[in-house]
Amino acid sequence: MDNIKSYVQHHKDRFINELIELLKIPSVSADPAYSQDVIDTATAVKQSLEKAGCDFVEICDTPGYPIVYGEKTIDPNLPTVLVYGHYDVQPPDPMDLWTSPPFEPVIKKTEIHPEGAIFARGSCDDKGQMYMHVKALEYMVQSNTLPCNVKFMIEGEEEVGSKSLSWFVERNQEKLKNDVILISDTGMISNQQPSITTGLRGLSYVEVEVTGPNRDLHSGLYGGAVANPINVLAKMIASLHDENNHITIPGFYDNVQELSTEERAEMAKAPFNLENYKKALDLNDVYGEKGYVTNERNSIRPTLDVNGIWGGYTGEGAKTVIASKAYAKISMRLVPNQDWQEITELFTKHFESIAPAGVTVKVKPHHGGQGYVTPIDSIGYQAANKAYTETFGVPAIPVRSGGSIPIVALFEKELKSKTILMGFGLDSDAIHSPNEHFGIFNYLKGIETIPLFYKYFVELFKK
Amino acid sequence: MDNIKSYVQHHKDRFINELIELLKIPSVSADPAYSQDVIDTATAVKQSLEKAGCDFVEICDTPGYPIVYGEKTIDPNLPTVLVYGHYDVQPPDPMDLWTSPPFEPVIKKTEIHPEGAIFARGSCDDKGQMYMHVKALEYMVQSNTLPCNVKFMIEGEEEVGSKSLSWFVERNQEKLKNDVILISDTGMISNQQPSITTGLRGLSYVEVEVTGPNRDLHSGLYGGAVANPINVLAKMIASLHDENNHITIPGFYDNVQELSTEERAEMAKAPFNLENYKKALDLNDVYGEKGYVTNERNSIRPTLDVNGIWGGYTGEGAKTVIASKAYAKISMRLVPNQDWQEITELFTKHFESIAPAGVTVKVKPHHGGQGYVTPIDSIGYQAANKAYTETFGVPAIPVRSGGSIPIVALFEKELKSKTILMGFGLDSDAIHSPNEHFGIFNYLKGIETIPLFYKYFVELFKK
Repeated sequence: MDNIKSYVQHHKDRFINELIELLKIPSVSADPAYSQDVIDTATAVKQSLEKAGCDFVEICDTPGYPIVYGEKTIDPNLPTVLVYGHYDVQPPDPMDLWTSPPFEPVIKKTEIHPEGAIFARGSCDDKGQMYMHVKALEYMVQSNTLPCNVKFMIEGEEEVGSKSLSWFVERNQEKLKNDVILISDTGMISNQQPSITTGLRGLSYVEVEVTGPNRDLHSGLYGGAVANPINVLAKMIASLHDENNHITIPGFYDNVQELSTEERAEMAKAPFNLENYKKALDLNDVYGEKGYVTNERNSIRPTLDVNGIWGGYTGEGAKTVIASKAYAKISMRLVPNQDWQEITELFTKHFESIAPAGVTVKVKPHHGGQGYVTPIDSIGYQAANKAYTETFGVPAIPVRSGGSIPIVALFEKELKSKTILMGFGLDSDAIHSPNEHFGIFNYLKGIETIPLFYKYFVELFKK
Repeated sequence: MDNIKSYVQHHKDRFINELIELLKIPSVSADPAYSQDVIDTATAVKQSLEKAGCDFVEICDTPGYPIVYGEKTIDPNLPTVLVYGHYDVQPPDPMDLWTSPPFEPVIKKTEIHPEGAIFARGSCDDKGQMYMHVKALEYMVQSNTLPCNVKFMIEGEEEVGSKSLSWFVERNQEKLKNDVILISDTGMISNQQPSITTGLRGLSYVEVEVTGPNRDLHSGLYGGAVANPINVLAKMIASLHDENNHITIPGFYDNVQELSTEERAEMAKAPFNLENYKKALDLNDVYGEKGYVTNERNSIRPTLDVNGIWGGYTGEGAKTVIASKAYAKISMRLVPNQDWQEITELFTKHFESIAPAGVTVKVKPHHGGQGYVTPIDSIGYQAANKAYTETFGVPAIPVRSGGSIPIVALFEKELKSKTILMGFGLDSDAIHSPNEHFGIFNYLKGIETIPLFYKYFVELFKK
C-alpha cells in the first residue's frame, strides 16, 4: 500500500469529484426553504463515512437538523479522536455577486490558488474541510495505518448556533467520550505558512425591533412630530460605540482578559501587511478600537457589528413614508472569560434602557457561544504542529482567531477534552461571502496532514 | 335640472362605482413593473373627462408618464379655472398589513366614517379627490351652470416628484393660462370642521450609499478591524440631529422663516387634542424639535426623516456578515424660503464630509420641490371659504400643512397664478399607508362643494 502522498496523488480526481457532489446540495440551515436539502446532505455524509470505513454510522435525530455520528473502534485501550465538522452552509446571498452559481461548483485558478480552487458555497466552510477528514480516514483504513479509535460528529446547524448539537452532546457524553477533539473549520496564514488557531471569540447574536406609530405614516403630515423608528434605531446603534470605538454597554468589558505586553508582542510576530490588507478589501483605511492594531481588534478584542438592518421603503424610486417599525440583526464577538448569556442580558437591558419616549423596543436573542483558548503545550497542539511541520516544511504559528466556533467551549465543558483547530482555509477564501472557494492544494494538503496528526498524537499519548 | 345636492343624491351610486373602477388600476409610478397600468389609468381619466363634458381632451406625451389635459371653454372673456390632480399612487407595500387587497376596492364603515369609506390605494390620494372635480364638472355641464372656462391637468408622476409635469408646464404656459388653480390633494380638520391648506412644506429627497470593504466579510474574522458600513451609516444618520432634535447640517436653517408669536398663537387655535393624537397612533409620547409643539413641528418647521434603510442580511435567522454596502432613503421637509436644490446641495456636501475613513459615500438626489403659502385675502381663498361655509355650515379654518405638493410653487413661478388647496380627506385616511381609504361623505361633499367655488370665484372675480 503506497504512502499518503502517493495515495492522494493517485485518487485526487475522485476526492475532488466527491466533494463537488456534496457541494451541489444547498444545505442552507438559516432558511427553512432549504430544509429538505439540509437533510439530504446529512444522508450523503452518512454514506461517505460508511464508504470510508466506519464500522458504524447513524443519523441521530435532534430537535433540529440531524447529527451524523460515525465511529471505528480498533482497540478500546487505544486513545480516541473525535472529529467534529458541519454539513450546513451560510445563505448564498447576495446572489448577484457570485461569478458562478453558489451550488454549481466550478474549479477556477486564482493568484493565490494557481493549482485551482473549488468555487461554491460551503467549499471551505465547512464541507471541504470536513470532507478532508473523511478521505484521511479512507486512507488510514485502506492502508491499515489507523493508530487509534476515531469518532465523527458532523452537525447541520453550525451556521445558526448549534442549538441541537449542545442538546445532543449533553445527552451523549459516554458515546462521545474521547481523548482529543479535532476540527478543521478555521484558516491558516498562507499556503507557505501553516498556523493553528489557539483562540476563538465567543458570540452573542440578537435581533432588535423598534416600533413607533402603529402604522406607516405620511412623512409630510407627521414628519418631525413623531419619533421615526429608523432615525431612532440609527441613534441607538450609533450610541453603542463611543468616539474611540469602545462599546458603551455598561459592564461589557468587565470580564475581558487583557493580554500582557509580552503576549501582544508575541502576536505581533505573525506576518501581516497592512497595505496588502487594505488593498485586498479596497479600503482607504482600517477602522476600529483605539489603542489596538488590526490583528488585535479582530482577535483579542470584543466587537459589536450590525449584520443586517431594514425598515421603511426599500424598493425602487421614492416613497415619503415614516415606517411603523425598523429592525436590525446585531452580533457581538466576545473574548475568553466573557459569558455570552450574560453579555446578551447586558445588551438587552442597555438597549431597552436607551429607547427614547415615542418608541417601544424588543430584543430577541438569536444564539451565542463562549470564547476559547487552547494551551500550546497540550499534546494535541504538539501533534498538530509536528504534522504541519512535516507536510509544509515549516512549523505552524499559533494564532488567535476572531471567529467563533461556540461548540468548542461546549465540548470542553461537557466532554472535558481539548479541541485542536487544524484549519487549512485562507482568509481570502471568502467564506460567508459571494464566491467562497477552497484551494485544491489546501484540500489535498489537509488530507495528507491529518493522518500524521493521528500518528503523532498516539505516539505522544503513549509517552 | 335639479340642484347639486339632489343631483349627487340621485347619482351617488354611479359616482362611487366609477371611482371604484379607477381605483382597480394599480398606477404605482415608483415601480416600473406597473408602467402599463399607469398608462391605462391615463386613458381611463381621459375618457372620464370626455364623458363629463370637456370639449377637448388629449393625452400629452412627456419624457415620463403622460399628462391628461382637458378643457371646456364657454367664453374667452370669462375667467378660467385650472384643475390639477394626479392619477398615480404610492406603492402599496407593506402588503401584509392591508386588511383587503389595495387594488380591490371595498366599502367599509369606520368610527370616523359611519356612512362608509372606500378602502384602496389612491382612494384619497389622489384618485378620489381628483375625480370629485370630474363629477362636479359633469353636474355643471348637465345643469348648464358652469360659470367660467375650465382646464384639467392630471399627471402621473406626483408620487415620484412630478419631473415631467414641470417639463410640460414650462413648455405650455399659453395653453395652461388661467386665473386660479384648484387642487384637492390635501386634507381638512374633520367632517364637521372644514379647513383650507394655506401653506405647504417643500421637499428634498435623496438616497445615500455607504461602501466599506469591496465584498461582504465574515464578521468574526473582520469584525472590529474594518468599518462596518451599516454601523457607519447609523452613526452618520444619528449625527444629522442634535440632542434637541435640531438638524445639524450647516446652513440648513439659514432661510427658514420664523413665525411671529401672533402667528403661532393664531395657529394654536386650530382644534387639536394631543391625547387623541397619541392614542390614534399608539404612542406613549410625541417626539420632535425642542421649542415647538406638535402642530408646529409638522407644519412650520423643516424636518429630516429616513424613509427607508437596508443593508446586510435581512432574511430569516442569523448570518454573521459585515455587509459591503448599506443604503438609506432620506427626505427633508422644507418650509417657505428654503430652496430645495440648495438644501439638497447642503445635505450632500455635509453627508460626504462626515464620512469616516474606511468608507466611501455616494449621495443621489431623487427629487424635490419648494414650500408655498397662499394669502387668505385672495379671492380664490375667499371663494373656497364661502363654498365650504355653505356646504358644511361653518367657515373653513386656514391651516399650514406638513405635506408637499412641489408643483404648487412651480405653478406660481411658471403660470403666475395662485393655487387654492380645497382638500376633503382626513389625516386618519391613511394615505401612503396600508388601508388607505376615503369617506363616502367626503367624496360626495367634495362634489357638492366644488361647483360653489366656481360660482363664488366668478362673482368675486367680476367685482
